[in-house]
Amino acid sequence: MAETTTTPAASDRGDLADVGVTGLAVMGRNLARNIARHGHAVAVHNRTSSRVDELVDEHGDEGDFRPSHSLEDFVASLAKPRRVIIMVKAGKATDAVIDELVPLLEEGDIVVDAGNAHFEDTRRRERDLREHGLHYVGTGVSGGEEGALEGPSIMPGGSRESYDALGPILEDIAVDVDGTPCCTYVGPDGAGHFVKMVHNGIEYADMQLIAEAYDLLRSGLGMEPADIAGVFEDWNSGDLESFLVEITARVLRHTDAQTGKPFVDVVVDQAEQKGTGRWTVQSALDLGIPVTGIAEAVFARALSGAAGQRKAVLDKGLAGPSGVRLEGEDAEGFVDAVRQALYASKVVAYAQGFDQITAASAEYGWGVDRGMMATIWRGGCIIRARFLDRIKEAYDADEHLASLLLDDYFASAVDDAQDAWRRVVSAAVRLGIPAPGFSSALAYYDGLRRDRLPASLVQGLRDLFGAHTYRRVDTEGTFHTLWGGDLSEERQDTADQGSHSPH
Amino acid sequence: MAETTTTPAASDRGDLADVGVTGLAVMGRNLARNIARHGHAVAVHNRTSSRVDELVDEHGDEGDFRPSHSLEDFVASLAKPRRVIIMVKAGKATDAVIDELVPLLEEGDIVVDAGNAHFEDTRRRERDLREHGLHYVGTGVSGGEEGALEGPSIMPGGSRESYDALGPILEDIAVDVDGTPCCTYVGPDGAGHFVKMVHNGIEYADMQLIAEAYDLLRSGLGMEPADIAGVFEDWNSGDLESFLVEITARVLRHTDAQTGKPFVDVVVDQAEQKGTGRWTVQSALDLGIPVTGIAEAVFARALSGAAGQRKAVLDKGLAGPSGVRLEGEDAEGFVDAVRQALYASKVVAYAQGFDQITAASAEYGWGVDRGMMATIWRGGCIIRARFLDRIKEAYDADEHLASLLLDDYFASAVDDAQDAWRRVVSAAVRLGIPAPGFSSALAYYDGLRRDRLPASLVQGLRDLFGAHTYRRVDTEGTFHTLWGGDLSEERQDTADQGSHSPH
Repeated sequence: MAETTTTPAASDRGDLADVGVTGLAVMGRNLARNIARHGHAVAVHNRTSSRVDELVDEHGDEGDFRPSHSLEDFVASLAKPRRVIIMVKAGKATDAVIDELVPLLEEGDIVVDAGNAHFEDTRRRERDLREHGLHYVGTGVSGGEEGALEGPSIMPGGSRESYDALGPILEDIAVDVDGTPCCTYVGPDGAGHFVKMVHNGIEYADMQLIAEAYDLLRSGLGMEPADIAGVFEDWNSGDLESFLVEITARVLRHTDAQTGKPFVDVVVDQAEQKGTGRWTVQSALDLGIPVTGIAEAVFARALSGAAGQRKAVLDKGLAGPSGVRLEGEDAEGFVDAVRQALYASKVVAYAQGFDQITAASAEYGWGVDRGMMATIWRGGCIIRARFLDRIKEAYDADEHLASLLLDDYFASAVDDAQDAWRRVVSAAVRLGIPAPGFSSALAYYDGLRRDRLPASLVQGLRDLFGAHTYRRVDTEGTFHTLWGGDLSEERQDTADQGSHSPH
Repeated sequence: MAETTTTPAASDRGDLADVGVTGLAVMGRNLARNIARHGHAVAVHNRTSSRVDELVDEHGDEGDFRPSHSLEDFVASLAKPRRVIIMVKAGKATDAVIDELVPLLEEGDIVVDAGNAHFEDTRRRERDLREHGLHYVGTGVSGGEEGALEGPSIMPGGSRESYDALGPILEDIAVDVDGTPCCTYVGPDGAGHFVKMVHNGIEYADMQLIAEAYDLLRSGLGMEPADIAGVFEDWNSGDLESFLVEITARVLRHTDAQTGKPFVDVVVDQAEQKGTGRWTVQSALDLGIPVTGIAEAVFARALSGAAGQRKAVLDKGLAGPSGVRLEGEDAEGFVDAVRQALYASKVVAYAQGFDQITAASAEYGWGVDRGMMATIWRGGCIIRARFLDRIKEAYDADEHLASLLLDDYFASAVDDAQDAWRRVVSAAVRLGIPAPGFSSALAYYDGLRRDRLPASLVQGLRDLFGAHTYRRVDTEGTFHTLWGGDLSEERQDTADQGSHSPH
């Protein structure tokens, strides 16, 4: 059991608790237990008090719990500066708890929101609480119920000062990889929740790519799920080693007890979502960062869930290849080609996600250390992977790296993979197997490396129909062609003299 | 000059104006002139009065303008119920004008926002003004400066009652196609601005697909822009006949006078955007509608605009095919294959856009007539096309059509095109030419027509790492597998008993 280095033992603090947790549903309960197990006195509170008693009854022997049945008692039981972790449903519930808490707190106290808040809400709350002299820490906590108890990956935002007081406890309870806790100061105000959001978005992309790889092996080669499980197990001993690849093998290996069929065949093929993937793409659109991998993943889930539409399409039937498989030479080495395509596509998805963090960090002045983000994602969270060491190394080698794809390791990995990548996408297209993640990642890669893009034509069209102007490659300034006149070119005084039509 | 049928002549109304326009930048000025030219007495106002005088000085002979130099006079000069068209920059400027106007108006008066407002802002303003007994009409106006003057496509939302009073004037000034004005009542509150937003989103997709077609012909076959202009001219006499295809030919035909180079080669290849494409995708994410064509188009513009990153990539170089061209058999018939791929991809983009309108109409209770939307987009606006007649016919034949792709005409068009479509996407992948629009449209099509999607694997993964549960194909209910235990299956009482991690 690790000892925190900066928090005095409870007895030195007049027997006040080191930290409090309010909201004792499964995540809050597990977080409180994790804290107690690490030797910190933890005050616990819940709106419905029975949960407080249950926690102490069932797990009181794990550490020093200080139960409270009112928020007043809860706050009074905390050493100063008070450290209060809120773990309630994101949204109005969080605001309600904050409203109740604030009058009970004193300048310098620290309020931590460990739920999955939208980073803009966190920015707003941090601003509001700062006016009360309080520190507000929006923190991402990844790893689900098990992570909360055994060691999550923790991404706290807020003031540096609050991290000085809070960080030691969080680093204590975070999972540890190679001697490094998966917790670090992310940046001011909404930085922690933002980074957690992008983490989830990347997770969407990662899962979509894995699903496409499985589909290609199954539909393209006619392999059975159990055999594909073996392929994923094999992949998990190489560059693709990761929690998601590991559990993919487990899910594919599983046979439904009732029917004797592969488990994946008895599950309804409509993927659900809870919002952070969507948020990630919406934020990327605001920031102007092309996260096509995450977007295609979110949309693939949406398409899968369009039950009524899919049924109507099936009833009528839409033309296209179906049941066609790769044979002979075409099938040879295809399994390994899919592995390479998966890896290259995954690199693109991560490159895009890190671009989004880069853009937000610049936009909001967060100063996020991207290498550290890769570091703290190596344990606890869903996207934990060997791969993240490489990302850390890439950003350690060049903290201003303009794209992960420019790092020597990744550039050469994608170079090695690309013949296979192109082969796999071509096969998907020919066989009629949807591979939106693989193909959009490849299109992005080909777009990024292009000297000239056909965007110049788009600018020409915009200038013609909306007088939106364009720039020239050979002269500074903004120009408009008199398309309805003699086609001569006019220099414009200001950027975009164009119409009010927002194209 | 058309006569309005329901508005009494100005003389019958005590010499008050039929309608007023405030905000006389180019769009407002042209709209006012259009109204005046159609025989309506139009009151005109602008914060900076000189614009009012300029308008009357320059165009006073075109019709019956009633200049006002204060908002009070402007309002006083209008017949009741007053019809006030606001044409100012979307956002705070609109709110400012509304705040000034409201105290001057009376119950039953109609305030029209003809700017490009976000539909959520329009919903808010409509709610606010309804409380004052005023009608608020958010209306899309498409066609840019020229359309505003010569006849735009108009998409008004708001109350039915307001349309009874306002529609005749709007239908008068809208462009007319085959005897039908390109203006119709769209639906309550934000419906008009929503439909205009999706129109713009579709326009993004359409332009991206055209840009990819051009790039494939140029980079894949080595054709020169002027030759490709000829191809687009040719295409414009078939199913692809549209304003955008027509002007693509004009832009590609254009030679830069200074350098003698093709115009598209002297334009900086960084496409700009003003926001409605982004809004469309953000709204589609909220509605859960996969508008991959629009998303890829918005992201392609974002990628093109990432100047610093693109330069860093070019400086270092990323591996991949470059300068490879189709030869011999591979090149044969490729131009026509691109035409077919463009058409099929365009059908998908429109199908997705109409799905978004369908979803929003259901979500907000708008009752949008989709066939009528296709009808009023046939003239005035950027995406006007022969194609829209087919969409109108599809929805006229089946007002509950679950996807445009299910209509016989479109199903068979895509069926005819699909070998070519797959051939073109494969070629792009092999040659390293980015075609995100073509390839994501094809992936969507292949996903939509699929009996089973690998989303069942995604659900399995989510159940394993987050206890998010799944449904079975053979039994009602929600289930969770004890992945950490004996792999037995538990029936869950409520939907998603899972953790608080929002994946």
